Amino acid sequence: MPEKQLRVECLAVTPNALSLIYAAFRQCYHAGFVADMWPRLLSGEIDPEVQADFVAKTMESGHDSPIEHVSMTFAVEGISRACSHQVVRHRIASYSQQSQRYVAENDMDYILPPAIAKIPEARERFESFMAEVQSAYTDLRDILVANGRKSKANEDARFVLPQAAETKIVLTMNCRSLHHFFHLRCCNRAQWEVRAMANEMLAICKEKLPALFKNGGARCEQLGYCPESPKFACGKYPTRQTQG
Amino acid sequence: MPEKQLRVECLAVTPNALSLIYAAFRQCYHAGFVADMWPRLLSGEIDPEVQADFVAKTMESGHDSPIEHVSMTFAVEGISRACSHQVVRHRIASYSQQSQRYVAENDMDYILPPAIAKIPEARERFESFMAEVQSAYTDLRDILVANGRKSKANEDARFVLPQAAETKIVLTMNCRSLHHFFHLRCCNRAQWEVRAMANEMLAICKEKLPALFKNGGARCEQLGYCPESPKFACGKYPTRQTQG
Amino acid sequence: MPEKQLRVECLAVTPNALSLIYAAFRQCYHAGFVADMWPRLLSGEIDPEVQADFVAKTMESGHDSPIEHVSMTFAVEGISRACSHQVVRHRIASYSQQSQRYVAENDMDYILPPAIAKIPEARERFESFMAEVQSAYTDLRDILVANGRKSKANEDARFVLPQAAETKIVLTMNCRSLHHFFHLRCCNRAQWEVRAMANEMLAICKEKLPALFKNGGARCEQLGYCPESPKFACGKYPTRQTQG
Amino acid sequence: MPEKQLRVECLAVTPNALSLIYAAFRQCYHAGFVADMWPRLLSGEIDPEVQADFVAKTMESGHDSPIEHVSMTFAVEGISRACSHQVVRHRIASYSQQSQRYVAENDMDYILPPAIAKIPEARERFESFMAEVQSAYTDLRDILVANGRKSKANEDARFVLPQAAETKIVLTMNCRSLHHFFHLRCCNRAQWEVRAMANEMLAICKEKLPALFKNGGARCEQLGYCPESPKFACGKYPTRQTQG
Repeated sequence: MPEKQLRVECLAVTPNALSLIYAAFRQCYHAGFVADMWPRLLSGEIDPEVQADFVAKTMESGHDSPIEHVSMTFAVEGISRACSHQVVRHRIASYSQQSQRYVAENDMDYILPPAIAKIPEARERFESFMAEVQSAYTDLRDILVANGRKSKANEDARFVLPQAAETKIVLTMNCRSLHHFFHLRCCNRAQWEVRAMANEMLAICKEKLPALFKNGGARCEQLGYCPESPKFACGKYPTRQTQG
Repeated sequence: MPEKQLRVECLAVTPNALSLIYAAFRQCYHAGFVADMWPRLLSGEIDPEVQADFVAKTMESGHDSPIEHVSMTFAVEGISRACSHQVVRHRIASYSQQSQRYVAENDMDYILPPAIAKIPEARERFESFMAEVQSAYTDLRDILVANGRKSKANEDARFVLPQAAETKIVLTMNCRSLHHFFHLRCCNRAQWEVRAMANEMLAICKEKLPALFKNGGARCEQLGYCPESPKFACGKYPTRQTQG
Repeated sequence: MPEKQLRVECLAVTPNALSLIYAAFRQCYHAGFVADMWPRLLSGEIDPEVQADFVAKTMESGHDSPIEHVSMTFAVEGISRACSHQVVRHRIASYSQQSQRYVAENDMDYILPPAIAKIPEARERFESFMAEVQSAYTDLRDILVANGRKSKANEDARFVLPQAAETKIVLTMNCRSLHHFFHLRCCNRAQWEVRAMANEMLAICKEKLPALFKNGGARCEQLGYCPESPKFACGKYPTRQTQG
Repeated sequence: MPEKQLRVECLAVTPNALSLIYAAFRQCYHAGFVADMWPRLLSGEIDPEVQADFVAKTMESGHDSPIEHVSMTFAVEGISRACSHQVVRHRIASYSQQSQRYVAENDMDYILPPAIAKIPEARERFESFMAEVQSAYTDLRDILVANGRKSKANEDARFVLPQAAETKIVLTMNCRSLHHFFHLRCCNRAQWEVRAMANEMLAICKEKLPALFKNGGARCEQLGYCPESPKFACGKYPTRQTQG
């Protein structure tokens, strides 16, 4: 029943991502067929740097629909059910999440919020409560099994599991949806946990596809100002009202 | 800190729903403009029963995209966070859910699973644990506030709240998405809680728009057989393998 | 075979739209159940102006997901197939479009682009060509029918119909998707025809739901500047680069 | 101005597709983290055939959401604007289509429907009309340019281009959306052109990902019966009514 740390792994990226976006974008304005250009894009006969520059400029102009052709798949562990509930609200994405109906939590991992970790009294109260959770879960499962409800024991006992309970999820988003996810979830107004997850994902995106994600992050990073009302602004960038 | 019961209320239905679907469907095959036919659809000059029959027949033929033009909005209370996490996985829908980050749970309501309610020993264990939850939540909030983290106290303390914690949600789906929701969630394989919620929604749909939902429900209700593998079939309908 | 003018009619709006958005938004931050507040929202006990102000402020803050609960359905005639092809690229919407496979174009209506209408020589060339189209379509249908392909004659003959051919469509979008549609299609960079259609829809939106659409339109109307690169800016607003 | 043939090329498939789907599916029911299993999936330590079998069985059971994690990108040329208008109605997909606003059609390619090609009289009428189209387009462009509307000449002149005008498109769909596309578009009721395109895509899918697409195609191929009403059934499979 240990505390669990966030871990984000990238399982897949659409291959030849920049060439693909370059080809898709070119097809809109080109008389020929990009499939005929494709071998030269892959061989480097059309300079990869030229392709990357082209894509980066396209991104800046806001005409970003071609980046939808590239998707990334992440496996994430060490997030709470509170966090995963926020994540799956993003609808332009695909999810496969660990099921508490099927996987027994005989040794439940949990997420310890940093603010609680920092205050010894809070941490102690939290951790002793996690032990109470485990005991309630195990007791309820045993009672349910003893009363002939074996096949549904997990699914009923799970009602005592906390929002802190660790979950794992495989998720796929296209790059346009990823940018939107980062706009909202890398913002300092987002909850610390989903922000940490978004920042890990963003770091991987920047590493794998720098031309696409170099300006990725909270919306302020692209806008140069904070789009929130002054009351909620974190101060990293000026708000629009105070900008002029 | 009482147990809370499911309650589903319908807040909105697209007005003149059958006429709208009738008009949308007719526009596909009609040389004229349905806006010109619209007053006669509303006045009843074109018999409402004829409109309803037409829509029902269209539904049966499987060409159901025109029913997307009609949406319904429900307000739901008395569901657990476990249930709402399943609900929001349906992506062709709009959600506004009560936030545990902003709403303090000083007197947390919870959902008591019926299988637990039926076993006195289980119920007692469950209810005593709910009291422990409330006390852990309150303690943690107090500690966090005392340590200068007042504005985020809810959001950190919520990590101890159980999956059983009651939540409220306003959700809108179009009728095609509703049918899909019922296909999956009215099935006896669905978890009891989301099935109860789906059944309440379906009852409202049948009452408000009988021509659209008279065959609504789990997929077997339309198919006349169970599409699951025999291993998982509930027995209400024969599976395909055993059907012939 | 006359020229056809654009006509946009609103067939449906979600009832009690502002109260619905107000309720959905309130549910996120409110401990109670908005269904209990609902009668007071409808009766006016909670001042409709207060509701409208609340919704307008919410819109400004950018937290606009609750406006998805309200949808509008439009019937549109007098647009070209070129225009409808652009419209249906908007994916968060529902469409029912007149089918050229099923509806015979024995007397084809068409859209005359204003720039062509203004130049007598162009207009004459265009109109004489439309007569050639009609004759080619009729000839081909007759030949196909005479050769035993009656049931598919429309569907094959339609290949000679021009982009200018008039079409009719019923479309439903929620208010968030409508705003996005206006951002792109009310922009002076959009093609004149889809812009005309978007502007008609926007005028109806402003009339039916002023609190929601008072700042609706091209993105510059909300931003106060043009987000396009200077090369493409129409000049109505300064671009960001020239703004500071 | 030649007739153009359909050509479909696959530009991208999510790498390690079967392992990815296997991992995503396993994550739902597995206590561990699939990222830890990932190297063994790629190395073949977990038998690729076992992975493929597992995925195929999952598909059959109808629990197909994990196949969304894999996407395919196709470049298509040699389809008409009539066809592309049908294609882009599929909303769970990404498109980049050749623009008639930007690409001048000085030598327009077109699609010749096979039923017309087979009847010499029809073919002659069709082809002579295509020459008229080219001449009308060129005339109108020249007149518009001569009248100072050079930058918009393509966009206005395009109104005379036929539905037969050839277009090119890059499109990406995930495998669940692809299956849905094939359900509708490989059906003998679909128009011959979009069916030809869907069949080409399906052949590529079967070659690249046989475990996923071996039962792909019109819905009857999975169901074993035709879901259409008897009036519309093509006869390849019995309809449900006549099946029992």
